[in-house]
Amino acid sequence: MTQTAGLKGSSSMLDQARERMAEVLGEDTVLDEESRVREFHDPYEGGNAKDYQPSFVVQPATVEEVQAIVQIASEFGIHLWTSSMGRNFGYGGSAPVVNGSVVLNLRRMNRILEINEEAGYALVEPGVRFFDLYNELKARGSKLMMSVPDLGWGSIIGNTLEHGYGYTVNGDNASAACGMEVVLASGDVVRTGQGAITDSPLWQRHKRGFGPSLDSLFMQSNFGIVTKMGLWLMPEPEIFTTGSVICHNDEDIAGLIDALRPLMLDGTIQGHPLIVSSPEPPEGRRFSPMDDTTGQSKKARLSATLPPGRWDARVSFYGPSAIVKAREETLRAAVSHLPGVTVELRTYPGGVDPDQVHPLDLVPAGIPNMFLLDMMHKHFGESIGHIDFSPVIPFTGEAAARHEAMVQQILDEAGLVAGFGWIANSRSLVGACMVFFDVNDAGEARAARDAVRKMCARAAEWGWTEYRAHPALIEDITSRFDFNNHALHRLYTSLKDALDPAGILSPGNHGIWGTANRLAD
Amino acid sequence: MTQTAGLKGSSSMLDQARERMAEVLGEDTVLDEESRVREFHDPYEGGNAKDYQPSFVVQPATVEEVQAIVQIASEFGIHLWTSSMGRNFGYGGSAPVVNGSVVLNLRRMNRILEINEEAGYALVEPGVRFFDLYNELKARGSKLMMSVPDLGWGSIIGNTLEHGYGYTVNGDNASAACGMEVVLASGDVVRTGQGAITDSPLWQRHKRGFGPSLDSLFMQSNFGIVTKMGLWLMPEPEIFTTGSVICHNDEDIAGLIDALRPLMLDGTIQGHPLIVSSPEPPEGRRFSPMDDTTGQSKKARLSATLPPGRWDARVSFYGPSAIVKAREETLRAAVSHLPGVTVELRTYPGGVDPDQVHPLDLVPAGIPNMFLLDMMHKHFGESIGHIDFSPVIPFTGEAAARHEAMVQQILDEAGLVAGFGWIANSRSLVGACMVFFDVNDAGEARAARDAVRKMCARAAEWGWTEYRAHPALIEDITSRFDFNNHALHRLYTSLKDALDPAGILSPGNHGIWGTANRLAD
Repeated sequence: MTQTAGLKGSSSMLDQARERMAEVLGEDTVLDEESRVREFHDPYEGGNAKDYQPSFVVQPATVEEVQAIVQIASEFGIHLWTSSMGRNFGYGGSAPVVNGSVVLNLRRMNRILEINEEAGYALVEPGVRFFDLYNELKARGSKLMMSVPDLGWGSIIGNTLEHGYGYTVNGDNASAACGMEVVLASGDVVRTGQGAITDSPLWQRHKRGFGPSLDSLFMQSNFGIVTKMGLWLMPEPEIFTTGSVICHNDEDIAGLIDALRPLMLDGTIQGHPLIVSSPEPPEGRRFSPMDDTTGQSKKARLSATLPPGRWDARVSFYGPSAIVKAREETLRAAVSHLPGVTVELRTYPGGVDPDQVHPLDLVPAGIPNMFLLDMMHKHFGESIGHIDFSPVIPFTGEAAARHEAMVQQILDEAGLVAGFGWIANSRSLVGACMVFFDVNDAGEARAARDAVRKMCARAAEWGWTEYRAHPALIEDITSRFDFNNHALHRLYTSLKDALDPAGILSPGNHGIWGTANRLAD
Repeated sequence: MTQTAGLKGSSSMLDQARERMAEVLGEDTVLDEESRVREFHDPYEGGNAKDYQPSFVVQPATVEEVQAIVQIASEFGIHLWTSSMGRNFGYGGSAPVVNGSVVLNLRRMNRILEINEEAGYALVEPGVRFFDLYNELKARGSKLMMSVPDLGWGSIIGNTLEHGYGYTVNGDNASAACGMEVVLASGDVVRTGQGAITDSPLWQRHKRGFGPSLDSLFMQSNFGIVTKMGLWLMPEPEIFTTGSVICHNDEDIAGLIDALRPLMLDGTIQGHPLIVSSPEPPEGRRFSPMDDTTGQSKKARLSATLPPGRWDARVSFYGPSAIVKAREETLRAAVSHLPGVTVELRTYPGGVDPDQVHPLDLVPAGIPNMFLLDMMHKHFGESIGHIDFSPVIPFTGEAAARHEAMVQQILDEAGLVAGFGWIANSRSLVGACMVFFDVNDAGEARAARDAVRKMCARAAEWGWTEYRAHPALIEDITSRFDFNNHALHRLYTSLKDALDPAGILSPGNHGIWGTANRLAD
C-alpha cells in the first residue's frame, strides 16, 4: 500500500456525492472551484504536485451535517479526509494521503460551547482556533489561561488530535483533553468518559467513565470524527517568570540537557520547555528579529529570529509569587555549574496585556500570536516552506548531542537550514526540526524532503521515530513499528475494520488502513 | 444479560480444558481443590454464595504460558477471568462476573524487569506488588519514590488497570502508566506506544507512538491481558511535608473543599489528597488507633483509626526544601479563613526510614503498608468485610456536602458505618465509601449491599456514577451511561467483537459483553 493508492470512488461517484452534499447541506457548504480548494492542498507542495490531492471540500456547520456527510460518503463509497483548520503546514496541511479524497473541513463548526471558570475548562468545536478561545476568555474577563503552540491560527482540537504541544502547564494538549463527542463511520454519535451519562456535570471534569477510556483512540487515527472536545485550562497565576538558560558552545548541549532532566522529573520546571539550537556562533549575538538581514547567509537570517545563545532552554514558572521564586532559585542552583551559562528571566503578572510582553514570551504567556511565521516571511520571503523531522528521543544529554550532530551534518551536506530544537517532556524530548525550502524551487523542495528521509533513517537505527509526519513520510515511519510482525499495526487494522469496515474515514492517516482499503488498492 | 449468565463451556469442556492446561503448563499451575480456589472467590461473599463463582484457577509464569492458556480456552470455549493479585476486596477480589469462569491469575508473573534510575520508571509484570517494588528499590539503594495505595499487598498493574489511586505525585496510576505488553484473545502479543518499535529505548519514557495510544483501552476492560507495564516513579525529594488540614464542624466541608480546589488546579498541592469524614464529634478526639475500643459504638471504633477532626484533608508537598516551604505557606494562607481550622504538618527527609514515619504518613511517604486493614481487624474483628460506593463527583463544596449528607442518611437508616472520604483530582473528587459488614452476618451483608445500591441510585439522579464497582453493581452502573441509546457501550461491544469475537476474556468486566456472550445467554 502506498500513499498514492487510487481513488476509491470513481469520478462519477465523486460527482454524485458532491451533488448530493450540495443538495442536502446547501451549495455554500461544498467548495469545488480550484481557487477555493487550493488552500486545502499541502501549502508547500509547489507546482505539478501529483500526490495528496483533494478532490473537493465540504464544510459542515453542525454534528447533524457531519452525520449526513458520512452517510453520503458511505452510500457513494468515497473517502473523507477530516481536517479542522488545516494549519499544520509542515505536516501537509489538509492534504489527504489518498488522492481524490474529499476534505471534510470543520472550520465552520467554531462554537465555544462552555467555559467553566471555577473548574478550569472549555468545551469547544473543531473550528475554534487558539486565537478564538483567547479572545473569548478576554471578552468574558476570565481568569483562566491557555497553553498555546507557536502559531495561534490553528484549531485547538486539530492540534490536540495530532498530539501537538504548547509549552505551558497543560501544553501536552492530548493530556489536557477531557471528554469528546465523536461521529463514527456508522453515523452514530458517541460521547466519551463521563459524557456518556446524559447531561453529566462531569464530562469535562473527570477523564474517565466506567470502562476503558477512549479519548486517545481518536487521536492520530481515522476511527471517528471528533466534533466536540473538552480542554483543561490553568488558572491565571499571580505571576509567571519565563526566559532562557543560555549556553554558548557546541559541546554544552549534553550538560544542559542533563541539568534540566531532574528539574522536569521533579516538577520544578512547569510545562514543556523548548530547547533551541542556533546555527550561528553566539559571540555577541542578540535576539534581533527586526534587523534587516538582506544578503546575509541563510544561517544568519535564521539566527536573527531565534532566542540568544548557541543553546537556549526556554523555561517557565507559574503560580503564587513565593513558589515561583523558589522554583527560580532551584533552577539557578541546578544550572550554575554549566560553563559560561547565563540565565535571563523576565517576570510578569498573570493576565498581562500582550503589549507588555517580550515577543519571545508571548507563547509562555499563553497569548496566541503569529510572530514566528511573520519573522520567517520577513527574513526568508513569503515563499518559504518547511518539512518537519520530529522524532521522540530519550531525555539524555548524550542522545540530544547525537541527534543534533546528525541533523546538522545532513543539513550542511544539503546546503539547507532548519529551525531546530526539542520540546521537553518529563522523560523524553520531542525533536522539532523544520527544514526550510523555497516552495517555488522544486530542487530545494526535493532536497529538503530527501534530507528529512535521511534523518528518519538515521534515527531509526537508534530506535527513534517521529511523533508526527508529513504524509510522504508516513509509510516509512509506520514500518519501524515492527515488534512481533507489526502487531500494533495489525491491531490498528482490526480496530479500523470494526469501526469503519468500508474504509471511508481518512484512509492512510498515521499508516492506518482498513482491509477494505487494502483490497481496493 | 445479568451477572449470573450461565457458564459458556459445559462442565465437560471445563474438565477437558483443565486437563489440557495441567498437561501443557504442569499440574502445579492449575488450582482446583476447593481449599486453594477459595481465596479467588469474593473474599466477603459469606456462606451460600451463588453468584460470581470461579470454577478453577490457572497461574501462568510467562507470557508464552498466557498465550497457551488463551489458546486452550478458545479451543474449549471457556471463559477466562483475569486477576493480578486479586486484592481489591471491596470490589470482589478475583471473583468473575460469569459463574464458572476460570480465574487466570497472574501472581506468578512477578518479575521486575527494569528500574531506570535516571529516567524514573520501572517495568513490571502483573504479579509485582507495591511491597515488591518498594523492597527492590530499597535493595538497590534507589533514589526513586513510589506512589502507593492504602494497602501495599496489591498488584501494581492490577491497581492501575482498575484506575486505582495512590496519593502522591503519580498517584493517578493510570496516568503514570507508560507502555504495555498485552496478550490478545487471538493469542497475539502486542506492545503499545514506543514499545511497538523492537528494542525501543523509549517504551517507558514516552507515552505515545505514531498513531493512537492504546494503553487506556486495556484498563477497566476485557480487550486483552496485560503482561507487562511501565510505571513512572518520582525522584526521592529533598524533603516532603505531609499532614492534615482539620475542620471541626459538620457544616465546614463545603468551605474546606472550595478552599482546596484552587490549590489543586494550580498545582500547589501535589498528588491526590484524601479528605476524610469522621462520624464522631471531634471535641478532644485524637488519632488513637492503639486504644482498646471494645464495647464502644461502631462509630467510635471507626473514629479511633481515622485522622483527627470532623473533616481531615491530607495534603502533601514534595521537592526541594525552598519550594516545599513556599507551597506550605501558600496552603496555610489559603485555608486560614476557615472557621476553627487547624493545620498539622510533619516534615521528613526523602527516603526516610519507615520506622521514623507516623502511621498516617506511611502512604504519603510512598511506603507500602497494611496499617489500615490491621486497624480494621483490631477494632472490628477478622470477619469485617466491606462493599464500596465510589462515585465521581464535581470538585465543589456543595457537591461534597450533598454527597456526604446522602451517604450518612442511608448509613444511619441501615445502622451501618463506613470509612468515608474523597480522593481529589484537579477538577473532580472520587468518593471512597467502604460500607462495613460482618461477612458472617448474612443480614448485615445484605443490608450493606442494599445501602450501596440506594446510594448509587441517589447519585445517579445527580448524574454521578461509580469509577469502580463490585460485580453485583456493574449492570446498574453501566445502565447510567445512556447518552444516544447507550452509544458508548455499543461501541465497547464493537471493539469487544473485533478483539475477542468468541468472548473468551473476562465477559461482563465493566459491563462489556461481546455479541457472542449475549448470544450464549
